[in-house]
Parts: sequence; structure tokens; C-alpha cells
Amino acid sequence: MHLIDLITRKRDGGRLTPAELRTFAAEYAAGRYPDYQVSALLMAIFFRGLDDEEGFALMEAMLASGGRLDFTGLGRPVVDKHSTGGVGDKVSIPLAPLIAACGVAVPMMSGRGLGHTGGTLDKLEAIPGFNTRLSLVEAKAQVERIGCALIGQTGEIAPADKKLYALRDATATVEAIPLIAASIMSKKLAEGLTGLVLDVKTGSGAFMPEMGRAITLARTMVGIGERCGCPTVALLTSMEHPLGVACGNALEIEESIEVLRGGGPIDTRDLTLALGAEMLVLAKLVPDRGEARVVLEARLANGSALAKFREIVEAQGGDPRVVDEPAAVLPRAAEQAVVTAHRTGFVQQVAPRVIGRGIIALGGGRRTMEDAVDPSVGFHILVRPGQHAMRGQPLAAIFARDDAGIEAGKACIAEAIVMGESEFTPAALISHRVTGAGVEEL
Amino acid sequence: MHLIDLITRKRDGGRLTPAELRTFAAEYAAGRYPDYQVSALLMAIFFRGLDDEEGFALMEAMLASGGRLDFTGLGRPVVDKHSTGGVGDKVSIPLAPLIAACGVAVPMMSGRGLGHTGGTLDKLEAIPGFNTRLSLVEAKAQVERIGCALIGQTGEIAPADKKLYALRDATATVEAIPLIAASIMSKKLAEGLTGLVLDVKTGSGAFMPEMGRAITLARTMVGIGERCGCPTVALLTSMEHPLGVACGNALEIEESIEVLRGGGPIDTRDLTLALGAEMLVLAKLVPDRGEARVVLEARLANGSALAKFREIVEAQGGDPRVVDEPAAVLPRAAEQAVVTAHRTGFVQQVAPRVIGRGIIALGGGRRTMEDAVDPSVGFHILVRPGQHAMRGQPLAAIFARDDAGIEAGKACIAEAIVMGESEFTPAALISHRVTGAGVEEL
Repeated sequence: MHLIDLITRKRDGGRLTPAELRTFAAEYAAGRYPDYQVSALLMAIFFRGLDDEEGFALMEAMLASGGRLDFTGLGRPVVDKHSTGGVGDKVSIPLAPLIAACGVAVPMMSGRGLGHTGGTLDKLEAIPGFNTRLSLVEAKAQVERIGCALIGQTGEIAPADKKLYALRDATATVEAIPLIAASIMSKKLAEGLTGLVLDVKTGSGAFMPEMGRAITLARTMVGIGERCGCPTVALLTSMEHPLGVACGNALEIEESIEVLRGGGPIDTRDLTLALGAEMLVLAKLVPDRGEARVVLEARLANGSALAKFREIVEAQGGDPRVVDEPAAVLPRAAEQAVVTAHRTGFVQQVAPRVIGRGIIALGGGRRTMEDAVDPSVGFHILVRPGQHAMRGQPLAAIFARDDAGIEAGKACIAEAIVMGESEFTPAALISHRVTGAGVEEL
Repeated sequence: MHLIDLITRKRDGGRLTPAELRTFAAEYAAGRYPDYQVSALLMAIFFRGLDDEEGFALMEAMLASGGRLDFTGLGRPVVDKHSTGGVGDKVSIPLAPLIAACGVAVPMMSGRGLGHTGGTLDKLEAIPGFNTRLSLVEAKAQVERIGCALIGQTGEIAPADKKLYALRDATATVEAIPLIAASIMSKKLAEGLTGLVLDVKTGSGAFMPEMGRAITLARTMVGIGERCGCPTVALLTSMEHPLGVACGNALEIEESIEVLRGGGPIDTRDLTLALGAEMLVLAKLVPDRGEARVVLEARLANGSALAKFREIVEAQGGDPRVVDEPAAVLPRAAEQAVVTAHRTGFVQQVAPRVIGRGIIALGGGRRTMEDAVDPSVGFHILVRPGQHAMRGQPLAAIFARDDAGIEAGKACIAEAIVMGESEFTPAALISHRVTGAGVEEL
């Protein structure tokens, strides 16, 4: 098979066969196709797309390029959640122990921050000693023992996807829906799941801001999951402002623990419960989402979700005292400052991309995959779009290494949070629900 | 400058600035951008195009990446011709000495065959001893001395284009009009011309078969030439069938010499005179194309064009006896066969791509740039589309190394030359003339 023929055909709007896509993924993972041809193919796919058959074949081929977890015989449902990423989105951290505390196995594989968004692995590593680099064998053993593991994509999982993703990142071909769908699903389906819940972000802080495209992405991923015999549900959720209050690695761990204690900002808690309810229904532990919420709230109230988080931290080498005294255990930024409103009015916007880039400017995010991350820095965002605020009322707190960081943080907040006259109702947190049966507006 | 920003902007339909394109060409020629990013940019350009400003800036940048010929002070016009390539198109070989015999300097830089088309350099090298690998200094000295040199693109000329062309060839991004125009013009304008004539092929045997796209390509190249102060004229010519009779390297040299003797197939001779007339007018040697033809026919009739060809062959190390006894000097295929019509009727097609691939099958063309070429093999095509032929009348002659070649040649001719009932008028040889003033239908 000559790759140039595939590039030409896709460029001219033709289809690639499943056999061709299988060969492509296997040969590329084995280093037998040059990057410069593959990147031309990726850009042709960006413009011409992949139909459902092609996308499924590519996903299967990437999945087949590596190993996978196998929980056959575990006797418990195995469910995970994936988010397309946003600012302040720490939901995975309270959600995984909460669901595990309900008796569902949660082999959660997460990523690192890149671009303006944070990454669950970076957040977890804010806990001193926490090790996210488990092998598949170790992760499986931990899931079997305590019901949950929080790990990164190892070289064993979908290596074709890993290589392709790095190339897409360097060639401006990330934002192609069929490639995103195949990439996410090849990793998630390698976890040996019996159910999957997707949090597809929309709005200005999402990688895919337009609602129509986000729905297409959700439908594509749900279609792939269902076709693989893994029931999949997607929620479309707003990323018009950062989720919750804390933005920054250690700060988000603190907020996650608040949620696990039954508290936390209302939107972080709500989204955790909404995604968790879908997971419990997919796990067939409860008949519907209403009953699921009752179970979940009980697990938060009786401390069993928090206890499960302590077990996970301990199992992965982290300091378990973080659960009881997060402020004492987590790294603390040397400097703090509060930004107040210079006028009375309504909050017009809290731009998540600006906040995300602000965290990077403070040293808390990555410009390249090799960058080290300072877990202590970040923001507390104290207002929401549409909210009324008085002159002098705190809008945000800045956590920085030094005075220069405080100044950078102030500039960021001044750009991100805009006050004005207009009164308006902000977008709902959860707008659509996508299942194999179709798209439901909420 | 980060190349990823340029890829993203072009992918999304934005413009690149002249400064960005200059940096791009210089840095890429210097090996400082990875091929995988450049190929993604090329594919984005394939889909989004380059406007006239961008195309001109890219052309200028590729031109500036290398050396160029400088004929200031020569006191003679300097004119060249370029063809976009076809099957049996040997016009450069009689044309260059013919124009040089009129007192115009012709520093002609040509290419090798690739794909289904032949290349002037391969044809010239069918002459024993002929050396096309002159340096710029050698080429300049020869043009100053005898008025003409027939050379290949050296590493000195537009190295950014040379590198980019190789990448385009491997990534299915050759067929983008602004890239083709910039590539051709960066090489031609490096010749230090005072005028340029372009032969833009259309029809099934052309790289750009559709008339509309071919006209766009011609307009783009003429625009670039005029903007650089190099008056440029393009003729749109038909490549619905091979040009002339001979197809194959040594065979085409023989036909070229016939034209230089005042004979040759009518279409080869006509196209040579039409392109030559444009060159003489651009050189300001004559006021119009009518007078130009009188001059050109006189140079063919009095032997001065042929004498000039002998001078060039001698200057570049070739055996000058080829001019008087081509059949004795040029390599001869061991086996020959004639294919005759199996029925009486009208010739429906003589497919140039099939003939071109047939030459490659006989060993006379290239599949990759590294392939060696057998100069002796090829075809004589004895009929034209629209022509009436009797059963048993010769359609073509095959020149091959062995019996297997003869069989391959017969299969090729059976596919390429189709006989039928329909009477029709074939496309005119020259359909349009494009100048700075616009497009004229002929």
C-alpha cells in the first residue's frame, strides 16, 4: 500500500477502506511511514472528513495497536468518564472515588494540561508523592483491589494514537472531529469498559466552542462506543466560564476534596453528580438518574467517597493526610492577592481561555509537554457571568510565586472578568444529552 | 515565527504575509523547519489557495533562496520558453537553437521526465556525450559565446523550490495552482530573462486537464512575470494526443532534427513556430507574430537553426554527427514492430497518458527520480484523433529492447488508440493566448 495513493484519494474526497486504515495505523505505529506523508493525510482528513465507517476503522486500528485492560470475570461493572477539557474542570478527581465507593470499578486514564486547559494528572501530582505512572498490570491490580486507579496513558495503550496525536498537535490538525473522536475512543475503549460517560464541553473555553460541532463530536463518539458494545452517554456542558472556584493544580485538589466532603462550589458539585448519575445508570446499579443522585449524595454525606479517595491516594504513594488537612499538605503559593470590582454592575464575562493562559503565565501550566508545572499557583474565581457585584467586592484571588506573578495575575483577571450594565441569564451548565437513541435537549 | 501559527491561519482561510513567506522559504531551505509541518502547510494551501500577493511573495522568496543568471550588459534580449509537460512534446529542442539563430540569447533550463511525461534533459542525453549538468557560470559563459545553453536545474537555482517540489511530490500537493505557478516562475526568473513564453497544456494528457484551471494557471504565471518586469505570454495548447509522431527519447531527438531541417510532423513544426514567434516579438526583434514567422521559417530553410543546434551539441560534449546522421549516432532499439488498424473507421482517441505509461513500461521513462532511462525505446504514433484509417493501415510503430517489450508496446497501443464510427473535428492545437492584457480565444 502506497500512502501517497491514500493521501490523493482523501484529498479528492474519496473514501479509505477499513483495511487501508488498519494498515495505516499499524505501519505508522511501527515507524514505517514518514511523518511528512502522514501529516499531509491528516490535513486532507481535516478538510474532507472521515465518514462513520472510516472513523470507526481508524479507532479500531489505533485500539488494536496496543494493549488493553481486561476486567472479564471481575463481576462488577467497569465505567469511566472522559471530558474534552476546560478550565477549572477537576470533576474527575471527586467523581472517580465517588463512583468507586458505589461499587463500580473505575479505571480512569487521564491526560496532562496542554493549551489553555489543565490536566487531571498534573492536578493529582500536586499531592506530594502521588504516582500516576502505573503500568497496565499495576493499574488492573489496583482496580481489582480497591475499585479505582487514576493513571496516565502509558506507552502500552493505543501507541498509534499517541504518535498520531503528537503529530496532529504539531501540524494544526487536532481540531478534526473524526480524528478527535477516534483518538478519545481508542484510549477509553482500551480500558475494558462496560459503560462510558462523556463530558463534551462547548462555549468559548472549550476546544470546540460551537454547539453544532460539539454535538457532532458527541454523536460520533457515542456511535463508536455503542458499536463496540460499550453503552455510551454524552452530556454537552458549558465552558463559557471556568468550572467552580479553583483554577490551578493544588487549588483544584482542595476544591475536589470539598466536593468529596459534601460541599464545594455548586457547579462543580452539580456536574459531578450529573455525570456520576449517568455512570451509575450505565453500571445498572440503579434504574434511573433520580435514584442515582440519591445514592451519590448519600456516599458524599456518609464519608465513604472521601474514604475511597484516601485509599486511592495511599495506594498510589500520595500523602493521605491531604484528605484531612489539604491546606497543610498541598504546596502553597508564597504570594496572594485579591482583585476587587472597580464598579458596581453585572459580570459580563469570565473568559476561561484568558484564565487558562493566566495560569500558564504564573507557571502553573504547560507551553510544551516538557515544561515543569508549579502546582501551587492559580486563581480563585469568585464570580460568575450574569452575577451582580458591588464596587469593591472581591472578583478573584491570585496565588503566585512572587510579586511579578501577582502583577501578571492582576493583568489576567482584568482581561478575563468584564463588568458592565447588561443583565442576562447565563447559559445552562448542561444543555444536551446524547445517547445511542439520539440528542435530547435539556 | 512559529510554523504552526502559519499552518493554523492558512487552514482557517487566512492570509500569510510576504515577510512570513520569505522567512518560511529561507528557513525551510536552510533545514530549520521539519518536513511534517511543511507538508501540512502545503495541504492547507492545496485546499485554501494562495492569493496573488501570497503567491508572488512565495515565488520571490524561492527565487531569493538561490543564485541567478545575470545577462545585464549582454546587449541582446534573453528569452526562454517553458512547457507544463506532455507526451511527445520535444519542442524545446528545435526551438532553443532556432531562436538563438535569430540573435536572441536562450538560457534554457529544463527538467527530467516524471509521471507520464517525458523530460527534455532525458531526451538530450540520448545524444552520446551530451552533458546537461552545467554550473551557472558555465551556462552563462556558453550563452554569451554561442547564444544558447540547454541545462538542468542546478542546486544553485531556487533550492527552496527544489526541496519543496520533492516534498509536494511525496505528499500529493503538486496539483495546487499557486504552488505550480510559484515553482515554475521562481526557476524561470532565475535565468535573468527579458521575456518568457509559456506553453500551458490542457486536455487528458496534461497535468492540469481542465481548461478553466489551465487558464487560471496561465494567468497566475503571466501575472508573476509581468510584476517582475519580465514580459510573459502563455499559449494554451492541446495535449489530447501526443505531439508529433515520435514518443521516446532518441526518437524525439530525431524528430527535432527533422524540424530543424525544415520538415517534421505538422503539429510539432506549428507549435515550434507559434511559440518561437511569441519569443521573437517579446525579444523586440520583429513588430508582430506574422513577421516573426517569416524570420523563423527563413532560419529553418537556410540551415542556420540546424547549424546552431550543432554548435550547442558540440559545446556540451555531444557527438555533433547526430545532426547529419541521427539514425547512425542515436541508440537504436533492437526490436521494432508495426501495429495496424483492425478495422476501417475514424480514430476516436490516441490517449497520451497511456502512451506515456507505455514508454515507462518499455524502460524509456522514470517511476522514481533515481530510475535509469533506456533512450532507444518508444513509439511512432502515425495517426491523430478524428483521422480516417483503413483496416490494415499502420497506426503506430513500436521500438523495444526485446520481444517482451514489443508485446507490452502492442498492449499499450491497443489501449491508447481507439477506432470507431464517429466522425469529429479534433480540438485546435492552440486555443488561447494569455498576456498581461488578458485572455484571448484563438
